[in-house]
Amino acid sequence: MALKSWLEGRWVEGTGAPSPLVDPTTGAQVAEVRSGGADLGAALDHARRHGGPALRALTFAQRGAILDGLAALIHANREELIDVSRTSGGTTRGDAKFDIDGAAGTLSWYGHLGKKLGDRTFLLDGEAEGVLRSKRFVGQHVLVPRHGVAIHINAFNFPAWGMAEKAAVAWLAGVPVLSKPGTATCALSVRIAELWVESGLLPAGAFSLLTGSIGDLLDHVGPQDCVAFTGGSETGRVVRGHPAIVRHNVRVNIEADSLNASILGPDVEPGSDTFQMFLNDVTRDLIQKAGQKCTAVRRIFVAADRVEETVEALTDRMSRVVVGDPGEKGTEIGPVASPSQHRSVTAGIAELEKVAKVAWRAEAPGGGCFVTPTLFRADGADVPYVHEHEVFGPVATVLPWSGDADELVQLVSRGGGGLVCSVYSDDLAWAGPVVLGLAPWHGRILWGSAKVHDQSPGPGTVLPNLVHGGPGKAGGGEELGGQRGLSFYCQRTAIQADRGLLDRVLGKA
Amino acid sequence: MALKSWLEGRWVEGTGAPSPLVDPTTGAQVAEVRSGGADLGAALDHARRHGGPALRALTFAQRGAILDGLAALIHANREELIDVSRTSGGTTRGDAKFDIDGAAGTLSWYGHLGKKLGDRTFLLDGEAEGVLRSKRFVGQHVLVPRHGVAIHINAFNFPAWGMAEKAAVAWLAGVPVLSKPGTATCALSVRIAELWVESGLLPAGAFSLLTGSIGDLLDHVGPQDCVAFTGGSETGRVVRGHPAIVRHNVRVNIEADSLNASILGPDVEPGSDTFQMFLNDVTRDLIQKAGQKCTAVRRIFVAADRVEETVEALTDRMSRVVVGDPGEKGTEIGPVASPSQHRSVTAGIAELEKVAKVAWRAEAPGGGCFVTPTLFRADGADVPYVHEHEVFGPVATVLPWSGDADELVQLVSRGGGGLVCSVYSDDLAWAGPVVLGLAPWHGRILWGSAKVHDQSPGPGTVLPNLVHGGPGKAGGGEELGGQRGLSFYCQRTAIQADRGLLDRVLGKA
Repeated sequence: MALKSWLEGRWVEGTGAPSPLVDPTTGAQVAEVRSGGADLGAALDHARRHGGPALRALTFAQRGAILDGLAALIHANREELIDVSRTSGGTTRGDAKFDIDGAAGTLSWYGHLGKKLGDRTFLLDGEAEGVLRSKRFVGQHVLVPRHGVAIHINAFNFPAWGMAEKAAVAWLAGVPVLSKPGTATCALSVRIAELWVESGLLPAGAFSLLTGSIGDLLDHVGPQDCVAFTGGSETGRVVRGHPAIVRHNVRVNIEADSLNASILGPDVEPGSDTFQMFLNDVTRDLIQKAGQKCTAVRRIFVAADRVEETVEALTDRMSRVVVGDPGEKGTEIGPVASPSQHRSVTAGIAELEKVAKVAWRAEAPGGGCFVTPTLFRADGADVPYVHEHEVFGPVATVLPWSGDADELVQLVSRGGGGLVCSVYSDDLAWAGPVVLGLAPWHGRILWGSAKVHDQSPGPGTVLPNLVHGGPGKAGGGEELGGQRGLSFYCQRTAIQADRGLLDRVLGKA
Repeated sequence: MALKSWLEGRWVEGTGAPSPLVDPTTGAQVAEVRSGGADLGAALDHARRHGGPALRALTFAQRGAILDGLAALIHANREELIDVSRTSGGTTRGDAKFDIDGAAGTLSWYGHLGKKLGDRTFLLDGEAEGVLRSKRFVGQHVLVPRHGVAIHINAFNFPAWGMAEKAAVAWLAGVPVLSKPGTATCALSVRIAELWVESGLLPAGAFSLLTGSIGDLLDHVGPQDCVAFTGGSETGRVVRGHPAIVRHNVRVNIEADSLNASILGPDVEPGSDTFQMFLNDVTRDLIQKAGQKCTAVRRIFVAADRVEETVEALTDRMSRVVVGDPGEKGTEIGPVASPSQHRSVTAGIAELEKVAKVAWRAEAPGGGCFVTPTLFRADGADVPYVHEHEVFGPVATVLPWSGDADELVQLVSRGGGGLVCSVYSDDLAWAGPVVLGLAPWHGRILWGSAKVHDQSPGPGTVLPNLVHGGPGKAGGGEELGGQRGLSFYCQRTAIQADRGLLDRVLGKA
């Protein structure tokens, strides 16, 4: 099966050499992609000329209704999509649902926001305020949709959610989308795209899908385009430093590597509710999506005098985990998503073996893209490799530290900035300064405690109403966050004018 | 007089070859700068280690009180500063006040905001909201000061205001500042820095000043630093694409070239109040600061059937303008700020002469950095040089066009994105769509009309409560905008936690 691109309102097959896409469970080829041959400048132009005006003419409520329709399509085809996810990405049923339901859920969430924003076509930002001493001559900020294309370069690990969450926000803002999925797992993105295109819900030009390599796409960006990238920092640098992006001051949002930390507060007694919450969250992140979440915990900080008990509790919990064919009932960890990820994670595990001990390790099948899920344990917290290298699989390292709050903030910040951090403590005096001290280094912090021990979706779950992104190494980006996410696709403009005229033009009078 | 830098809490003289700074009126040397010799990595480190923690420990009210004090110092030394401005920048008394009072006014404005924000040390962003279905487990966004340095690279045209407006926002956010003024006119920045440093108002490390070349400063940036640049797009590209900035995903804000447009609506009768407002605003921008404002009008769109009358009215108004020694009473236009600007503006005028006719031209003295103020008039609006090249002096071009709204938006957008645009019209049906159509291409739009004809500070005046910046060619940046400006220096972090604990840590309970 040759996977096509949807560009300029038609399905286009690439012209280059075929790249095989494999089922990571078996290693068997399931599809192929050919890159090249498409006129990507023309594709962007088509989106700007047709998709942009059509979306801008719709109200938020109308755009939201489209998002609701796209979500319903995903939901209606859920079983088929779960199958595609498994054969193309090696996901267990639970992992596939996490991705697919996340896609539908985020579309629905923004669909609902559209309904709330109602019959407007752009947003007011704050109140009108007097300019200098005048009460008649006022300034009002507005957020209007930019006239470019939202170029979305997504990662392989969330072929459904990644595409849908970025697109939902851009479409609600009124901006057309060109989505480029991660190639290894793009079969799921392509299938969803087919459903969306066939439905006719989206105006012509509002959506394009580019499979295979990105080619010369970024050479064609203009000053009203936005580029949102999720993936590794090396590629992130290429995007941020791309000459056309720099020349036109194109907006760029990057989500990249993140050495997410999870911290067990020194006050937390083993066996307590807060301890259970910590165990649940940490083990979930090792297991879910075979650890292939940008938000998954990689560094587990535990006070030195609690390390023995904590590692024992973690390994005990993990001891029953089943690694194997994601199509078989009871399997909790499948393979990683591609041969390239298999090489990368295997190499990372080998590096970690040089600097830390294996605390727990699962049996994994040979063949396919299976790696060996491993919990490492270092002798101390000063282990540069652990702070600097993200091993993107079912792998994490326990780092013992003194229990001191300031030292902890310093250690966590050695990750260079992360997407999320989780802190488990019921000691307000200790945890308060830790949470606030870690805040500048993260886009999101989950603080677990006894009273919410059973209410957490875990730090690894990205929510539409909270921001997703982090400073520094994590890319310096910010997505979602409810209505906040729309501003990336909008121009904020201050309009100074006679209050009476302005109110009429802005629909306030 | 050798101008020094204030780095690591001491005045440092450079070690390289001296660069002369001249009085642009006479060409006589007034000072010199030597670059090099300073350890700029250590300077940033000093700011991060000392200035950051000291500012973060202060409340907004305390930071605001510092800003008030710094503003008062400028005001108390106003006459001396006006003299320095004239001898180092060639400014008339009015132009010097525009810069110096602008500096004090913006500091005061943010001082007042600090008072309003009160006893907090960081900002809450929005309300706490339930995570998933829980009412106890909530998410609250906060904006906390980043732990880096605000590196401010300023332009030569506003040595006082440019330094003060950027610093006011960073300091109120709680972030230390390293300011690098434009070298040609930095004597005024240095004098203000001396006043600030001598006053002892700022905590140690909160302020650094780098005179002369930027050297290897940007090689030392880290993931928590922010760089705000105002200047030409060529240098802007170097900043945005700098390897260390790209590597660490350092936040960058750029204000660059802007081909600001001023549009006379086809409905506006010559002689009407709205017409007078247009004349006032356009001529002010030609005259003020000898046209050296990033917000000054460069392209004047007039409906073809009104061009004769309009050009006549403009030239009539400009005919009495006196160009000469800015120290003499009655002088309205002084020289441009430096020999380098003199070369650049003279070359730009020569290029414009190839594509447009001279509609009006002033007599200018020879010698020094005097250029010939010129109003050009093109035969039509399709003149690429006028849309693409900013001639940064007392120069603008009248472009006749059909009067059609859609065509106008298309023509204005050929500037590639601007800081500000001004539209003069009393025809709501025509101007409304024009203002909204131009919005995605600008950070600010001034809409002039009869009822506010005498209340406008003009499009060229940047106000602290409205955003300043523009998309695309204008740099893609955004400064000021009241409290909005603080977010550039802060990390937005979503904290998910038990509502009771969170309210206590955030000072809500």
